[in-house]
Order: sequence, then C-alpha cells, then structure tokens
Amino acid sequence: MTRFMDVHHGMKGITADELMAAHRADQEIEGEEGVHFERAWADPESGIVYCLSEAPSAEAVLRVHDRAGHPADEINPVPLAV
Amino acid sequence: MTRFMDVHHGMKGITADELMAAHRADQEIEGEEGVHFERAWADPESGIVYCLSEAPSAEAVLRVHDRAGHPADEINPVPLAV
Repeated sequence: MTRFMDVHHGMKGITADELMAAHRADQEIEGEEGVHFERAWADPESGIVYCLSEAPSAEAVLRVHDRAGHPADEINPVPLAV
Repeated sequence: MTRFMDVHHGMKGITADELMAAHRADQEIEGEEGVHFERAWADPESGIVYCLSEAPSAEAVLRVHDRAGHPADEINPVPLAV
C-alpha cells in the first residue's frame, strides 16, 4: 500500500456538505478497489480539492474517483510523510 | 486562523531525513509568524511536497518557508476538510 495525494480542479463553490457527500461516495466503493480515503481539503474559491488516500496503485485511486463521479486531475504517490 | 495547503516542486530525491529536517526548520520559526505546520507529504520521484498548515494568512506561511530556505511554489486556503 502506498499513500497518494490527488488533486481536483474546477470544484468552485463546493460546500462542506458537498465535500462530505463526495468523500462518502468514495468511501462507499473504495473497498472494491482496495483503497482507503483518509482526508480531503477543499477551497471553494479556487475550486481545488486535495484528497489523501492509501491504495495499491494510483490507478485504483483514480478508478474510485471516476466511479464516484468526480475524476481527479492530478495524482502523486507521497511515500514520505511527517 | 485558516488552514492552508502549499506545494513545493523541484524536491526530487528528497529523503525522509531531509523532509523531517525541513519540517523542523519551519517549526523552529513558525511561532514568529503565528503559523503552525501540521503535516507534510513528499514524493522523491516527482519532487513534489505538500504542506498542511494553520496560519493567519497565506503570506505568513510563505514567509516561514522562505526564511527556512525552501520557498513554496503554490498555496491555497483549504477552509473545508473531512
């Protein structure tokens, strides 16, 4: 398992409830891809959302986001953390 | 206080020890700017580092990173989190 940070653009105006709903939609299906979404942070003004996950591959993370209806624009493994 | 995510590029080859040293260098002076760095995640292969902080302004976060010798390339407030 590797930790990943993915980034969504274009989520301008996202609300706290919408962020929570999107996170729950990911979590409902993440087990099917062996992914676990840990945290997400959003800026309604710029429309950027950052998601932190643990997963077997970047492709698995992207598949969950795709299937949940909010594809990610960027993804990077982040094997180091403090 | 607002939560911020900032991003550094060009940190290719960063090691766990170097990430910890950079994080500590931030933490040594963060109090002077009213900033608190919470977490950081790095990808040695792409050279991207993400830093999560709480701060009075984006400028305060950038000043700490500048003074610690590792200026950030991007910063966004992330007022929403799950």
